[in-house]
Amino acid sequence: MKKIVVFGAGLSATYLISYLEENAAENNWRLYVADRDLALAIGKCKSENTQCIAIDSNDDEAVSKLISGASLVVSMLPASLHIRIARECLFQKIHLATASYLSAELQELDAEIKKNDLIFLNECGLDPGIDHLSAMKLLDSIRLQGGEITEFESFTGGLVAPECVDNPWGYKFTWNPRNVVLAGSGGAVKFIHNGQYKFIPYHRVFRRTELVNIKGYGKFEGYANRDSLKYRETYGLHHVKTMYRGTFRRPGFSKAWNSFVQLGATDDSYILPNSSQMSHREFINTFLPYHQTDSIELKLKSYLGIEQDDIYLWEKLESTGIFSDEKIGLPSDSTPAQILQCILEKKWSLKDDDRDMIVMWHRVCYTQNNTSKTVESSLVCEGQDRKHTAMAKTVGLPLAMACKQILKGSISLRGCILPTHPEIYTPVLNELKKYGIVFNETQITV
Amino acid sequence: MKKIVVFGAGLSATYLISYLEENAAENNWRLYVADRDLALAIGKCKSENTQCIAIDSNDDEAVSKLISGASLVVSMLPASLHIRIARECLFQKIHLATASYLSAELQELDAEIKKNDLIFLNECGLDPGIDHLSAMKLLDSIRLQGGEITEFESFTGGLVAPECVDNPWGYKFTWNPRNVVLAGSGGAVKFIHNGQYKFIPYHRVFRRTELVNIKGYGKFEGYANRDSLKYRETYGLHHVKTMYRGTFRRPGFSKAWNSFVQLGATDDSYILPNSSQMSHREFINTFLPYHQTDSIELKLKSYLGIEQDDIYLWEKLESTGIFSDEKIGLPSDSTPAQILQCILEKKWSLKDDDRDMIVMWHRVCYTQNNTSKTVESSLVCEGQDRKHTAMAKTVGLPLAMACKQILKGSISLRGCILPTHPEIYTPVLNELKKYGIVFNETQITV
Repeated sequence: MKKIVVFGAGLSATYLISYLEENAAENNWRLYVADRDLALAIGKCKSENTQCIAIDSNDDEAVSKLISGASLVVSMLPASLHIRIARECLFQKIHLATASYLSAELQELDAEIKKNDLIFLNECGLDPGIDHLSAMKLLDSIRLQGGEITEFESFTGGLVAPECVDNPWGYKFTWNPRNVVLAGSGGAVKFIHNGQYKFIPYHRVFRRTELVNIKGYGKFEGYANRDSLKYRETYGLHHVKTMYRGTFRRPGFSKAWNSFVQLGATDDSYILPNSSQMSHREFINTFLPYHQTDSIELKLKSYLGIEQDDIYLWEKLESTGIFSDEKIGLPSDSTPAQILQCILEKKWSLKDDDRDMIVMWHRVCYTQNNTSKTVESSLVCEGQDRKHTAMAKTVGLPLAMACKQILKGSISLRGCILPTHPEIYTPVLNELKKYGIVFNETQITV
Repeated sequence: MKKIVVFGAGLSATYLISYLEENAAENNWRLYVADRDLALAIGKCKSENTQCIAIDSNDDEAVSKLISGASLVVSMLPASLHIRIARECLFQKIHLATASYLSAELQELDAEIKKNDLIFLNECGLDPGIDHLSAMKLLDSIRLQGGEITEFESFTGGLVAPECVDNPWGYKFTWNPRNVVLAGSGGAVKFIHNGQYKFIPYHRVFRRTELVNIKGYGKFEGYANRDSLKYRETYGLHHVKTMYRGTFRRPGFSKAWNSFVQLGATDDSYILPNSSQMSHREFINTFLPYHQTDSIELKLKSYLGIEQDDIYLWEKLESTGIFSDEKIGLPSDSTPAQILQCILEKKWSLKDDDRDMIVMWHRVCYTQNNTSKTVESSLVCEGQDRKHTAMAKTVGLPLAMACKQILKGSISLRGCILPTHPEIYTPVLNELKKYGIVFNETQITV
């Protein structure tokens, strides 16, 4: 029997664990699910053959003992906790798989991982993950037919299903809210457009959006990810003239979100004094000029140049409760970003029967036989409820399916790898179809 | 004879060296001026009793030898170079004086400096320097008369004299241009206004200005310095309701400068690819959306929302040459901030006969005998020419005068000190008057 150890039984592990359990008997796997919270692990496991373990992943001795004899370790823990587990996997010569970005410190172990004939698979969730799988399949098939790629655009969004939209933003937190609040911050956004490098400072990112129509689902608004150029090499797109990767929201989101950016309410670099005692309203006033009598609403409109009749923007801001006298309620003074997240979570958390929705879209322009062609490929996937989200499904399933390929021995690559190779993307994309995760392609010849 | 060693003979040392030379005979001083560039040092020294030395300030042995037996060391080197000299001064038990901000690493030596009965004087130039001297004199005299201070505002600007204004910005570089380009960046600006903490993100700093009228010189525009609260403790203003420190420019500067901030052209965090080959125009286009036919001028107006008839703003932007096809001309790829500095230096460098101007202004509100009172204090100082700038004078003279007090033994303070004490500010401010550096006070009773 092959031993598989999964670290972390949180939201993103739900579908991964189910898949591994369902495929265990047929493949002769023995599954171990370890979490700090034993009850959480037990709640996620349905098979009596699965063993649940309480563990502190920083306890090297316990980790070492648990993974001993395993064929594969999967880490669904926060990204920063992977490296200790990775070192132990390397020491014990066990394959490793995660859905997180390949880190620099993991990359440093690459030569040694290869030397030990091991696979450390990274970025095999949704974004990163399914974006790599689907983009590479599309790009490789174009190149195989002699096409020369000139432009590549790719957007992904984690949203709520149309029927569950009940606020003017058309948005709720379906994943780590902190990442949503800090999106775009931390340095200029860069991409390449028609051969020219383009840079956008953080405070302009949400005003440089692109509208994309997805058949049957209407329009989505995309803003640029921080570094669109990162995967030029990985995707073999060194000479591409346009490369743009971004995030989808519903139209109007970015303009309204920009109000928070303009205020400085997304700043995570300092602690706001006395903020543990503040109301939502006082928090917003921190960023506005002092005035003895003018209301915060009027000061905000004037400061940000919001037109008196821009009701679409205004109803979004009002709906978040930022003008309320309610106390923020954080236990200690916090950064503006932490406070904004806390305020938004009061309104933007999924209700029990809310369903989320993943939208992914690629556009590739290329020339073939002297003809300019464009192909668009899109995926829409809706969740079932608050616990069975499309996000958890699209993060967990590709990773679980890639694990099966690793255990089957069908992957010849070694070292720190991404799922950008046919021996991973072909079987995983095929199997994902069975779970309703299907891309629609539209070919356009100009 | 008392030996004085001055490190650095650059622009800011001109008046300092002259003053020390003029006062040498009377006080029985022997002056040594050391610089990497011997010719520069020789050019600055007029007395045959002064000794000029070529030195690399990182050569600990040479520094140690040079300062041996000195009574006082003055460092006019870049701030980062002070610490090695400070350590050697401590070792040899020699007083030290600089015009730079007191650094954390110097502060760490405080106890040891005190133990050795030494004075390490910091922040005794213009800003920081004369601002401390004059603010503390004003604040102390109000407190001495039983006044309770409620508000403190202070602005300083390094500008060009009115007769030398020959560009629409009314501005030229009279000091380190890099600091001007990066002004306001590096974190949210904070201050306190009527008891409320206020924070401004970098991209809004130049849109939150204040107009101040200085009798005989017209209006100046002030934007907030990064941390106005820093000197609350130093100035004894723990309970002040409003504390705001800032920088003066001529009206209209900030709105136009904000265009560069909005574009992202002041970003110093990344190297712009291919920028060594770019023209001014191509540099600006890096921050603008791609378009096949629209001009860069039109794209800029549209992107930044510049009204078609806002000629005051537009003539400022045009006058900098940013739309020119001229090559930037930097030898290697650089950051946006470095490139912008290079472009502006082509237009904003002082001509030989250009005269600069320093403007400093404080406003203190206080209550005395149940009456609300306000006092304003301002200083305007014009330079002689490009080499004898008001900046060099107002940085060098207070430091030189404080050095005289140290050598006379009239300062009882020990350790890392600022010139915020009467035993420094009283004699220095009195002596500055002889050089035309005089504050005008206006008392207003509400």
